[in-house]
Amino acid sequence: MSCDFLALAQPGVQQLSPYVTGKPISELARELGIDPGEIVKLASNENPQGPNPRVLQAIEQALAELTRYPDGGGYELKRKLSERFDIDPAGITLGNGSNDIIDIVARAFLGPGSNAVYSAHAFAAYPISTQAVGAGSKVVPAIDYGHDLDGMLAAIDAQTRVIFVANPNNPTGTWFGPQALEDFLARVPEDVLVVLDEAYIEYASGDDLPDGLGYLSRHANLLVSRTFSKAYGLGALRVGYGVSSPRIADVLNRVRQPFNVNSLAQAAACAALDDQEYLRRGREINEAGKRQLEQGCAALGLSWIVSRGNFIAVNVGRDAAPVNQGLLREGVIVRPIAGYGMPEFLRVSIGTERENARFLAALGKVLAS
Amino acid sequence: MSCDFLALAQPGVQQLSPYVTGKPISELARELGIDPGEIVKLASNENPQGPNPRVLQAIEQALAELTRYPDGGGYELKRKLSERFDIDPAGITLGNGSNDIIDIVARAFLGPGSNAVYSAHAFAAYPISTQAVGAGSKVVPAIDYGHDLDGMLAAIDAQTRVIFVANPNNPTGTWFGPQALEDFLARVPEDVLVVLDEAYIEYASGDDLPDGLGYLSRHANLLVSRTFSKAYGLGALRVGYGVSSPRIADVLNRVRQPFNVNSLAQAAACAALDDQEYLRRGREINEAGKRQLEQGCAALGLSWIVSRGNFIAVNVGRDAAPVNQGLLREGVIVRPIAGYGMPEFLRVSIGTERENARFLAALGKVLAS
Repeated sequence: MSCDFLALAQPGVQQLSPYVTGKPISELARELGIDPGEIVKLASNENPQGPNPRVLQAIEQALAELTRYPDGGGYELKRKLSERFDIDPAGITLGNGSNDIIDIVARAFLGPGSNAVYSAHAFAAYPISTQAVGAGSKVVPAIDYGHDLDGMLAAIDAQTRVIFVANPNNPTGTWFGPQALEDFLARVPEDVLVVLDEAYIEYASGDDLPDGLGYLSRHANLLVSRTFSKAYGLGALRVGYGVSSPRIADVLNRVRQPFNVNSLAQAAACAALDDQEYLRRGREINEAGKRQLEQGCAALGLSWIVSRGNFIAVNVGRDAAPVNQGLLREGVIVRPIAGYGMPEFLRVSIGTERENARFLAALGKVLAS
Repeated sequence: MSCDFLALAQPGVQQLSPYVTGKPISELARELGIDPGEIVKLASNENPQGPNPRVLQAIEQALAELTRYPDGGGYELKRKLSERFDIDPAGITLGNGSNDIIDIVARAFLGPGSNAVYSAHAFAAYPISTQAVGAGSKVVPAIDYGHDLDGMLAAIDAQTRVIFVANPNNPTGTWFGPQALEDFLARVPEDVLVVLDEAYIEYASGDDLPDGLGYLSRHANLLVSRTFSKAYGLGALRVGYGVSSPRIADVLNRVRQPFNVNSLAQAAACAALDDQEYLRRGREINEAGKRQLEQGCAALGLSWIVSRGNFIAVNVGRDAAPVNQGLLREGVIVRPIAGYGMPEFLRVSIGTERENARFLAALGKVLAS
């Protein structure tokens, strides 16, 4: 009676291991039998500021239409994005988080017989989405945990359809500069889609970090993906976007589920775009927290990768898995990244001063035990 | 400089026409230059009751965690569903609406060389999701606009991996009974996945309509998909679910994006499951509204398809497109379904008494003009 449906699944799907998410606070609280309020979670690169009051107000207003389907075209949000960044609304693809954008790109342009190029130690969604559609992956070794852009260019072959590049990269926090991006884009064949994943760009803006949107007009094969889940503080709601030439967006919008972005997310994202002060304050908290974590790690004799995101990959100098277990027992959730080829590292999101201190104290205790 | 990315897309994707959504009220208001409050939308089978206060309360509470990612595993919602319907949580797959469940099934089990069987006049997501992955479609002619289950069984061939069956069906409202389902399931080969789409089941329960969940224990190749977008009144939020054997759910959960269901949707769905009174009242409004629309259509000399959903497909006796345009000019949005092979029909969602009356008056005016 019972058929092996895994064997009946598409070949790429059979090989998939599900993405490992940050352990939810509620789950650890259940396991430890303690109050969720006692747990510190620095595992998912979430914004420690708490919800933006202007966003909450916009959500309240949108609640009146809870029984209505979302605007599948995302008119208002596209209009806001278009104004804010001076981009063509026809070049915008909205996603259920930027993970959705990556997944849509893979579904649109990858399949058996084609491949995607990306770096070692890059975001897990690239291999998952690529493998799910049965495409090949060309994983290019990193240099000092950062993207080897020349190596990635050299890896492109006749079957390459997409190249995923993150700036800054997650989980390493590494980045490259405007000239490097310029040189790279000039050398990618025009029939290869470059997905420039800028999920953390709002934390990282500065002269030595390029704004991908500025390169769109000169590179018709570029797609910039961004998210409201990090600096904008909307992790719960799932909203991200891709910006590209309208002809690429047209293809992506065919694959996109018609109501992929819920109404509250659309309303919240519109309000979030209007509040630059929340972003500014977030960057301030992030820079202070980064210093605190770096100093704390230095005091523990640990090294880390210098990061431009809202997280730091810390080298604990030994297998990080038991260290992570010890931290969990202390009620602290961070992200082990052995799955990213970094078994001695833990990725720690930058939290509030209190959260960072709790993490550092727990880490010191676990390492000493 | 400008490459043809449509030509570079996967073959199935190149052929896709995007799903046509119900025109949003805001869009028509912009076009007509009138107040959104003057527009009646009966186009997307939404719940006319308005938001459930218990759901709104649950959302308010969840807003405190707006910066946090959702629980990717959906622990609480699966627990609630498991209790409410006496099902194994390991057999549940959560979706960004039940459209996501259909899409995930297609990605998991369909591809070039395989095919899906479904009925004519069935939900547009079946052909879209099937085509997007490059699989073939075997569309079985309907009998009196309802599923021809024998014909669908006869259409199954060695390449068939999935069969989509909706009960009641959208956009026709047609249905089949428990014995028909039993006979059908007994004859589907065990290696063909049966997706029983019950998006409207909460409106339709009665002795002559089977509850698909009751068939799961005897049919390991059955998946029942349901949604919170209709009777539960959460269209804005995007949450649906599939229930199947755990081994099928395991495959689907590999393909599912890890955070496909947002936090507010999860909290809202949990609260909605607790409120059977909202469902009961919704059924009452729906039955009264159905009578009102049927009587109104009869008075206009029109026929319709007897429906067990929260909508009615009305035969306007001529090309429905200009009738639809006339209704739009009257500020009434319904759904033309020429794309479903029903060019003389309009699908009208059952609304409040006032909305139904507005529709009937506008329809009378347009048909007389």
